[in-house]
Formats: sequence, C-alpha cells, structure tokens
Amino acid sequence: MLNERSRTATTSAIRDLLEHAQRAGMISLAGGLPDPSRFPIDQLADIAETVLRADGARTLQYGLTAGELDLRHHIVATTPAATSVDDVVVTTGSQQGLWLLAESLLDPGDTVVVSDPEYLGATQAFRRAGAELVSVRTDSEGIDVDLLEDRLRTGIRPKFVYLVPHFHNPSGATLSAARHARLLALADRHGFLVVFDDPYRDLHVEGPAPAEPAPHPMSVHLRSSSKILAPGLRVGWTIAPRWLAQSIERTKQAADLHTSTVSQAIVLGALTADWYPHHLAGLRDATRIKRDALCAALRDRLGERIVYDRPGGGMFVWAEISGLADTPFATTEDLLPVALDRGVAFVPGSAFSVERDLSAHLRLSWATASPSELEAAVDRLAGALDAT
Amino acid sequence: MLNERSRTATTSAIRDLLEHAQRAGMISLAGGLPDPSRFPIDQLADIAETVLRADGARTLQYGLTAGELDLRHHIVATTPAATSVDDVVVTTGSQQGLWLLAESLLDPGDTVVVSDPEYLGATQAFRRAGAELVSVRTDSEGIDVDLLEDRLRTGIRPKFVYLVPHFHNPSGATLSAARHARLLALADRHGFLVVFDDPYRDLHVEGPAPAEPAPHPMSVHLRSSSKILAPGLRVGWTIAPRWLAQSIERTKQAADLHTSTVSQAIVLGALTADWYPHHLAGLRDATRIKRDALCAALRDRLGERIVYDRPGGGMFVWAEISGLADTPFATTEDLLPVALDRGVAFVPGSAFSVERDLSAHLRLSWATASPSELEAAVDRLAGALDAT
Repeated sequence: MLNERSRTATTSAIRDLLEHAQRAGMISLAGGLPDPSRFPIDQLADIAETVLRADGARTLQYGLTAGELDLRHHIVATTPAATSVDDVVVTTGSQQGLWLLAESLLDPGDTVVVSDPEYLGATQAFRRAGAELVSVRTDSEGIDVDLLEDRLRTGIRPKFVYLVPHFHNPSGATLSAARHARLLALADRHGFLVVFDDPYRDLHVEGPAPAEPAPHPMSVHLRSSSKILAPGLRVGWTIAPRWLAQSIERTKQAADLHTSTVSQAIVLGALTADWYPHHLAGLRDATRIKRDALCAALRDRLGERIVYDRPGGGMFVWAEISGLADTPFATTEDLLPVALDRGVAFVPGSAFSVERDLSAHLRLSWATASPSELEAAVDRLAGALDAT
Repeated sequence: MLNERSRTATTSAIRDLLEHAQRAGMISLAGGLPDPSRFPIDQLADIAETVLRADGARTLQYGLTAGELDLRHHIVATTPAATSVDDVVVTTGSQQGLWLLAESLLDPGDTVVVSDPEYLGATQAFRRAGAELVSVRTDSEGIDVDLLEDRLRTGIRPKFVYLVPHFHNPSGATLSAARHARLLALADRHGFLVVFDDPYRDLHVEGPAPAEPAPHPMSVHLRSSSKILAPGLRVGWTIAPRWLAQSIERTKQAADLHTSTVSQAIVLGALTADWYPHHLAGLRDATRIKRDALCAALRDRLGERIVYDRPGGGMFVWAEISGLADTPFATTEDLLPVALDRGVAFVPGSAFSVERDLSAHLRLSWATASPSELEAAVDRLAGALDAT
C-alpha cells in the first residue's frame, strides 16, 4: 500500500475500501502522489552518477546530523527565514520534520492548535506525542484567526499552532497575508510557536509566487523536495529558532543519525541546476491544466450539487456535496464504495476531521490523473451520486 | 561534527576533546567511520544512474513504509531468520531500527538488558524511551549468560536483551554458539525478546562466516549496509516476529513514511551485483591487514602495558592499560588530551560504561587509518603514556 493514500485514510474501513483504488481501470483522485511523468528522471540520474563519481568518498560516508553543509548553505541563500545554517535541519522528508518537532517539543497534555479539516500525517504525529489538539475552523483564507483569538482568550495555552499556509491539504486554502501577520502578533503576545508546513508553495498557478516570510523568532518552517522534485528521495528541511533546531538535531541523531547523503546531494544538484527553473515552470503549467480540468468537470457535470473554492495551486480540491440528504447516501463515506464500483476513488471528508462534522465533504486530488482521466473521473462520480 | 564519533563520545568533555581529532596530522583511532577508500564508488554511481534511468517513475515515487518489495524479497532469500517479506522492515540505517524498536516496544520503566561496555547509540535510544538498563558483563565470548541467569533469578523481567553478536562495538567480542543457544532458551522460558544488532558480521577475518541464525519467535535481527557498502546511503533492515514488524512499520509511517527509495534501489543493485562477493572479499582482506597491523603495533610497542583480546573482525580493539596508576594519568580520559597533543585520538572506555568502572580502558578503531598510520598512532600513544 502506498504511503500518501494510507496516511489520509483515517479509519480502517476507509483504508480497506481504498485498497481497491489500485484495481485496473480505476481512476484515483484519492492519492496524494505526485505525477511521476513530471519527475525529471534523466536529469536526476545524471546528477546521481556525477555526484557519486566526483565526490563519492564524502557523499557515501557518514554525514552531519543536521544535514550536509552545502545543501544548508543553499537553503540559507534562498530562504530569508533561515539566517544561518544553524537554523536548518535536513530531515528524511518533511514528515520526519513533524515527528522530530513533536518529539522535541511536546509533553503529554500539551496543547497544539490545528485547522479543521487537517492533514492527517500531522495530527497523527502530534497525537502520538500525547498532545491535546484544539481545532480552529479553516475557511478560504486559512485558519480563522478571530476564532483562534477567542480560544486564546478562553485560556488555551498552545505550545504551537500548526498550519499549511499554501494550498492546504485537504482544504486547498491559502493563508492570507493579513492573517499571517495577525498570527505572528498573537504568537509574540502569547508565547507560542507557529509551524508553517509548506510543501506545496512552489505549485502556485495564479499571480506571483507566494511571499517568502521574514525571519521571526516564533516561526518554524517545514519545506520539502517531495512535491517539486520527487518524494522517493525523502529530503525535507526544517527551519527553526536556533534553540529548537539544536533540540531537533539531538532527537534526529538518536532517530536515524542523518538523512541519506546521496539523496541530499541529488536534491542539491537539482535545485542548483540550470534546468531547474524550467522544470518548475513545467510542473506549474501541468498543475494549472489539471486543476482547471478538474474544476471545469466539476462545474459542468455537477454544477450546484458540489461546492468548493478553486485553489490557487497545490494538488487538492476540497468539496462539499450539497443536498447529500436527497441522495441514497448519508455521507461521502457511504458514497465511496459505489464510486469505487464505478471506477473512481476519493477520500471522504471524515478522514480529515479533527472535531467538525465533515461527512458531506470529500477531497479530490488532480495530481496523478491526466486531464481526460479527471473528466472521466468526475463523470463516474456523478454517476455514483445518481445511483439508486 | 561527524556522526559516529560524536555518538561514541558520551560526556561533553570527551566530545569537546575529540573535536581536535580532525586537526591536520592527527591520526584518529577514535571514529567508527568505514574507510572511504573501500567504498565501491564507481559501481554505486553506475547502479544509481541505471536504476533511475530504467525505473525512475517508481524509484522516485512514494514507496512502501516497510521497504521496497524487491529488496525485502532479496533479504528473505539470503537470510534464514526472515521467513517472509512481512517479517522485514527496511529502516533509515540500523540506528532507526533501534529507535523504532524502542518507540514500538518500550514503556517508561521497562527493563532492557545490555552488555557492559555497550554501544552508546543503543543505550541512548533505550534510555530516551524511558527504559531502565540492566547491564551484564561482557567477556571474550560476549554477554555472560550465567550472570544474566542470576539476574533473572533475582526477579528482573526484561522486555528484551540487546546485544551485538559479532565483533561488538566497543568490546570486539563475539557471542559463542553455546551462549547464543542458552540465551534463546532463556528467552523462551522467561518471555523476553533477544535483539541481535549485527552490522559487523560480514567483516569476519578468521575461519568461516558467522552462522546465519534460524528463525525464532523471540529473536529480532538488525542488519545494515553501512559497514559493507556505505553508511551515507542510510539503509538498514529489521527482521522481527510479524506482530512486532507490523508495530515497527506503523511507528515508521509516522516517523518518516519510508526510507529513501533511491538508496534502497542502490543497495539492492549492489547486493545482487556480480562484483559484490569480490568487493566483500577485498573489504575483509583490508580489515585483516589493518587489524593485524594495529595488534602487532600494540604488542611490539606496548607489550604487557596493554591487555586486549584480538577480535575476529569488525573495526575495534578494546584494550585496558595495565598499571595506569603508575603513570601520570589516573584514567584514559586524562590520557586523551596528551595523546591528542601528540597527534593520536581514541575513545576513553568510560564513554561506553553502563555501570562498570572502565576508566583504564580505551577503544581503538583500525577502520579509517592505513597500516603505517596505525603503527605511527600506537607510537604516539606509547609516547603519551611515557609523557611526564
């Protein structure tokens, strides 16, 4: 069973159903897997061969727990939030960043604020460390900071607020600049950290690139090469205040010593290659074309029966089926087996629920399917909704 | 600071001193770094390029948490203890195997039996999970099973017994077949697991290869590619009873999703290459030559002033300085700064102590230095001992 899918399937019932998503002929909008046809395979093969042949004695040796210095220097040079290599810890994917953060920061009973709906890989890592999750509703501008302020006034004292600031998984929402600023002001006033988990930021398809945040003593940033190069390399990085970066580094030393230096060298080679900007532009073009194909199909085929905000990038449309009560299905979880029978997979909204009732919601990923498959998938979904 | 070294330096005083071990002209017998001149660099570069070009869409995608199936099939085919791919979890180095084992099995207050002296990467991972360590003395045949039986009789109830069965770090000892069998009988009777952490087994330089253990329901085996190919790849594997392998897999999913699929593909390519047996034979030859050079220099230059068992392989000589009280140094920790001044580094025995007084011991690694450097290093060590 592939990873992203199993992580987003919260109940074993959903997980069991989604096992069918790999059946022949199935079009899966369930997974969070990047489109492998966009991997820069030959370029990465060339880099792998070159870095090993040129510097294998170093690349194949034990490395620094915080990550190879040349990669961390590149991150500092390209990320204003990182003021020094001492602020950066390279992780085995940004999932490890979440885990190390939880292991380094959280004691049982600590409060963590998350959005609702929220990314399951994060809530699972925090719950595993014994955190009490307090959820704050997310709308089209990201986490509702008014509601957060209310919760702070009622006395919650979070260790950190976790959020995916761009093209959130699953909601697709992007945090507005105004809310971003208010959030940091609240963090300063109340003494909590804000964890910006930002794997999708480079998959923006409208307007200018997302602003790069300035350094801030209460901010933590998780970044990843998984969605812009290839997830199999397992290279992410955490930018954190120095005291926290050191604590994360100590935890990582016990956890896996360091991230594959071969993967790190491949990622650095790619990020600094002359073809990289062209690759990223192509990835954004493909992202826009597929987002548009999925949204057009939803509009044309389902019209007012489905409600969603068109995301500005990323991989996901988060939608609510209106009038689900008028169908034979009480919930999107009930709809799923019928949809699977018709050859389309999605993830029911309940999988991402922290406290809210999200039983009429579903997450649709455009990442893996082609535009024509996306159209066919929505046809099948509409057929499932009409099934009696 | 490189990894192996920092992990074996327990106190910050020793760690600070060993920072000097990278000074120009220093010969370090302190590190546990494999000799990079033995890395099969060109072969690994070829494999990396080939597997990416041939199967990049799969190799670069998210993979299975338990590890790529083809690698796990190879492990099953070559390791009698693994009866099915479901018994095998590929880990980000075998250090992650230790960490996942601790996270999956241990509750605060649980008892874990270790040897004394013991490998610090293991004791740190177990202590972090809240375990109470009970140490049992190690001699030239490995952990003293009589003493273990005494401890069991006095009422200790370990969750597991941890040991490095071949060429133990730091003691160099190899568990005898008789003790191996008695240990498993005790495990069956008392219901504890035995964790065999075995990264050095292929670095045997005398007699036949170590026997491959049969499947056993109370056995866990940690293996690694770090000492036989290259540590930077970070590929190890844990072979465990199915219930435990599943628990480790769930923990790993939250910890880092999966190990670099690129590293896994490189390791599988190397382990199945026609040059691999020749590579391993060369590595063993180099190991024997360097072990012999170090032991000969110790005998010729220090004679009865140093006591050690000649290990049958691995990377380390564990030695005790006799009559240290007759020198200006009360402990090998006191000797270290003088040795560093003379251009030789080692790790004082106290770094590996669980409960024993190991202040007259030291660990000498032959792995990184050349035979002539090993001779020069022992000369410098003797000079340091004679310093007044």
